[in-house]
Amino acid sequence: MELKDIHSPEDIKHLTVDELSNLSDRLRDALLSKLSAKGGHIGPNLGMVEATVALHYVFNAPEDKIVFDVSHQSYVHKMLTGRIEAFIDPAHYGDVTGYTCPRESDYDLFEIGHTSTSVGLAGGLAKARDLRGGKENVVAVIGDGSLSGGEAFEGLDYAAELGSNFIVVVNDNDMSIAENHGGMYANLRELRETDGQCATNLFKSLGYDYRYVAYGNNIGALVKAFQEVKDIDHPVVVHICTQKGKGFGPAEAHREEFHYGGPFDKSSGLPLIIDEQADYGTITAEHLLDKMKSDPEIAVITAGTPGVIGFTPELRNAAGRQFIDVGIAEQEAVALSSGLAKGGAKPFFGVVSSFIQRAYDQLSQDVAINNTPVTIGVFYGSMYGMNDTTHLGWFDIALLSNIPGFVYLAPTCKEEYLSMVDWALEQTEYPVAIRVPGVMVSESGKTYAADYSNLNKFCVEHCGSDVAIIGAGSFFGLGENVARELQKKGVDATVINPRYLSGIDDNLLDELKTNHRLVVTLEDGILDGGFGEKIARFYGTSNMKVKCYGLKKEFADRYDANELAKECRLTAPQIEEDILSILKSE
Amino acid sequence: MELKDIHSPEDIKHLTVDELSNLSDRLRDALLSKLSAKGGHIGPNLGMVEATVALHYVFNAPEDKIVFDVSHQSYVHKMLTGRIEAFIDPAHYGDVTGYTCPRESDYDLFEIGHTSTSVGLAGGLAKARDLRGGKENVVAVIGDGSLSGGEAFEGLDYAAELGSNFIVVVNDNDMSIAENHGGMYANLRELRETDGQCATNLFKSLGYDYRYVAYGNNIGALVKAFQEVKDIDHPVVVHICTQKGKGFGPAEAHREEFHYGGPFDKSSGLPLIIDEQADYGTITAEHLLDKMKSDPEIAVITAGTPGVIGFTPELRNAAGRQFIDVGIAEQEAVALSSGLAKGGAKPFFGVVSSFIQRAYDQLSQDVAINNTPVTIGVFYGSMYGMNDTTHLGWFDIALLSNIPGFVYLAPTCKEEYLSMVDWALEQTEYPVAIRVPGVMVSESGKTYAADYSNLNKFCVEHCGSDVAIIGAGSFFGLGENVARELQKKGVDATVINPRYLSGIDDNLLDELKTNHRLVVTLEDGILDGGFGEKIARFYGTSNMKVKCYGLKKEFADRYDANELAKECRLTAPQIEEDILSILKSE
Repeated sequence: MELKDIHSPEDIKHLTVDELSNLSDRLRDALLSKLSAKGGHIGPNLGMVEATVALHYVFNAPEDKIVFDVSHQSYVHKMLTGRIEAFIDPAHYGDVTGYTCPRESDYDLFEIGHTSTSVGLAGGLAKARDLRGGKENVVAVIGDGSLSGGEAFEGLDYAAELGSNFIVVVNDNDMSIAENHGGMYANLRELRETDGQCATNLFKSLGYDYRYVAYGNNIGALVKAFQEVKDIDHPVVVHICTQKGKGFGPAEAHREEFHYGGPFDKSSGLPLIIDEQADYGTITAEHLLDKMKSDPEIAVITAGTPGVIGFTPELRNAAGRQFIDVGIAEQEAVALSSGLAKGGAKPFFGVVSSFIQRAYDQLSQDVAINNTPVTIGVFYGSMYGMNDTTHLGWFDIALLSNIPGFVYLAPTCKEEYLSMVDWALEQTEYPVAIRVPGVMVSESGKTYAADYSNLNKFCVEHCGSDVAIIGAGSFFGLGENVARELQKKGVDATVINPRYLSGIDDNLLDELKTNHRLVVTLEDGILDGGFGEKIARFYGTSNMKVKCYGLKKEFADRYDANELAKECRLTAPQIEEDILSILKSE
Repeated sequence: MELKDIHSPEDIKHLTVDELSNLSDRLRDALLSKLSAKGGHIGPNLGMVEATVALHYVFNAPEDKIVFDVSHQSYVHKMLTGRIEAFIDPAHYGDVTGYTCPRESDYDLFEIGHTSTSVGLAGGLAKARDLRGGKENVVAVIGDGSLSGGEAFEGLDYAAELGSNFIVVVNDNDMSIAENHGGMYANLRELRETDGQCATNLFKSLGYDYRYVAYGNNIGALVKAFQEVKDIDHPVVVHICTQKGKGFGPAEAHREEFHYGGPFDKSSGLPLIIDEQADYGTITAEHLLDKMKSDPEIAVITAGTPGVIGFTPELRNAAGRQFIDVGIAEQEAVALSSGLAKGGAKPFFGVVSSFIQRAYDQLSQDVAINNTPVTIGVFYGSMYGMNDTTHLGWFDIALLSNIPGFVYLAPTCKEEYLSMVDWALEQTEYPVAIRVPGVMVSESGKTYAADYSNLNKFCVEHCGSDVAIIGAGSFFGLGENVARELQKKGVDATVINPRYLSGIDDNLLDELKTNHRLVVTLEDGILDGGFGEKIARFYGTSNMKVKCYGLKKEFADRYDANELAKECRLTAPQIEEDILSILKSE
């Protein structure tokens, strides 16, 4: 059978185990060709080829329901469920997303891009089945670091009591994005070393029946194990040991590097695009490491994504015990940071914008109410960051800036960012979050204030009249561009760097009333609940006009940032046009 | 020694075990006197008397650090750490909060009112100690339902690898607020039944050393166990079995009822204040139960707080398998709801405003991105709800209404609330949250729309001119009052019930411009990121004045609601005064 003839899992059901094995090899080859050309989640998918083939061979999707955690391990699932073209025909590589997607196929139950959700979601499917008296199998596929998230634990804890068919496939590849951290992984290791026989067993302690598959890349062993649990009448964990990056030498050898990446040479594994540009991760790591050398109280925390803050294995090693990876567990990262700060240490938790929302309650309760001086670096908080619908960096301003007590800073460039990091780490009065200014590094060459404790004091960069442009963080430059264009039209706009997203400068805003008629706000996030609305409310009963610019409240998916900017009138010419029109209508 | 002579734990260190036992009895008596007079967390504290005495006898706080989870089990801790007067002198009963509170005492490390946080916070204290080379003991006290929260699991998972002193005391009273739910509790039961000897052991599987104390209300056994682990050089769990409500017959017999309550008769246990008023919990439970009888697809979900939605043990029994308690695990409640909806069921998750924030990422990713038709009932979202700083119901509007796709409804009375519940459960287009209208039940006697699918259509209740008052949800009545007073002054205000918190009625707002100069918004939550700011932004470039009313962004504590209302100018006379002044200044 040729790959192009796979239209649905039905097409593989008549194959022998040997033929399935052969099919797996060819699927892996195709996958590797696409991954090397386009990039994506490399290691996770290479490791899951055989398990995915076996799942679709044994279970009858879409009647049987398979939920893939994070769903970055679902490429082979897509290949087997009507989307093979997107993996074998370069012209169609872009047809599918990198995650399961119900809009693409009925075989995809959920859009999933954050970890640890599969067990809870599948638990709901199973309970709904039981309420209506259905008989289908419900399977959650979890692993590759996802088990450490509290949501996975809550899901396992509840589903153990379902009393009906529920199958959890734990894909144990001995890795998270980086190496695994946490006590539970010692248990997984012991289970691997004892062929699943050791007395201490996390899954049994949560109430699960348990099966162990030592060779999780062996199609015969997998088929046998899945056949044994198919139609089971109670919750069971099938613990399969797979090789992350299986079948591609460089990915097997460099598992962290090949978790996710861009195009690479298929024989050597070397990246095809060398990005020599500076990035905020590396800048952050080097800056912090330098400080850590002379200050043993600085602790840098990551929740399973050390690469985001530039901490390569070498730099982690250099940081020693001052570097903490809690695994993919953002709640713990925030609570731990609060404890560290209370204990006199200086914690810096670096996290992706889209993931900080996994810890709202901890930010509010564990940190803000306790006013512990933690520092949180929020990365990729920008429309120019990740553009998958599950990873948008648009929501953190509304989330963080409305928590009482949190100081949310918006530096405009590298220099200001580092000066804010320095201040945040040394002060002991406030919890501070710092929104890393966009994705591309911008350097102003300027020197910035060393003290931000006089809260909500905006900085007037240029004093003009009629219109004041308040450009927050990564959009400050956009504000400067608009002002430059306006100047050509004879309008001398005031330009303001607000520096703070969590509060407004009442005095300055009042002063603006004397010779300004319009205030424009620019923010790199959704308008709803954001920074601009605070300004609009402030001026609500005055004669000042306020125009807020930012993103629409929506979950865009794989958008073109320049197109989106135009749609939201976030380009300098559009803003200039609006301003001139408003000033004229006055 | 008399209780009044206890000024610090030092004062009990010279006692014999028998004397400690006697002291425990007297502490319990005093506690019972205060609890019967003032109410509070009854069962949890009565069960922890001996363990708290033993902790302070063995460990040297505040140098040794003890973190109490939820901290509603910390009353005896307060009695032993300089605050005895607040428990033995009725004139001083109000001197202390119901939770640990660093403002009260250095013995209190954190302000803690949400569950499952102690291990993470204590983990941070332990790591900070290790970074500075300290030697003190760090103890986290967790239990009484808190273990089921994912944050606790994340904390346990990380701290297992500390490689240094870390003591987790698991207070196992076989209860959450209601009975325990989840697979892990079967393991706790097996551990109890085998005197801690069974092979399957959750704590060992997470990497902990383990000690078992069968008699967790026996001071001798506790002292011995704590002495054994004091100064231990690695993480250990001490699993103690206590009796919730210990020493007070009615509380031992009715553990759910006596988890938390008001004043009661000390001999019979009967409540001194019988609240015969209708409440939204009971109304919700009766309404849902009625629907569930004829619709097996309705599933009602609670995260460990069935009482909030009126589901008494009897009603839970009547609901049978359609009632789901996932334990204190809000992330799971939301993920499960999404899975249920995807599977064709009709989930209703009832949750306290302050706790829904524990599941922001699940609301966003598991539900909103997947557009699953879940219904979430948000209770106590009001300044007239719970007034402990950790339980404020002020933040849910900013949290929920800014998530794309979520429809957040604000009913104004019982009738509108139930009509919205009916609609939300039957429709399949949107995730819906409904903000239960305040704490006191208000009945309008009116009939309300049966269809809310025409999103963001505000309802004009009275058509006037000059000023329009938009009173959201529980503050709609306040808006009516203001309008009534204005009428007397010759101002015929338009009165609007917005019904939706998650979007605005652009057309209506545009129409208002024709004969209105001022729009007033009223919301029962913080202004920052809230509903009113959306209106202010909408009118930013028009001549319409906007005045937003709501709460300040702060963590108030045990406030007087009427005083707070005055501070925030949330009384009808103040608002009327402001409106007249703004209209006049035009």
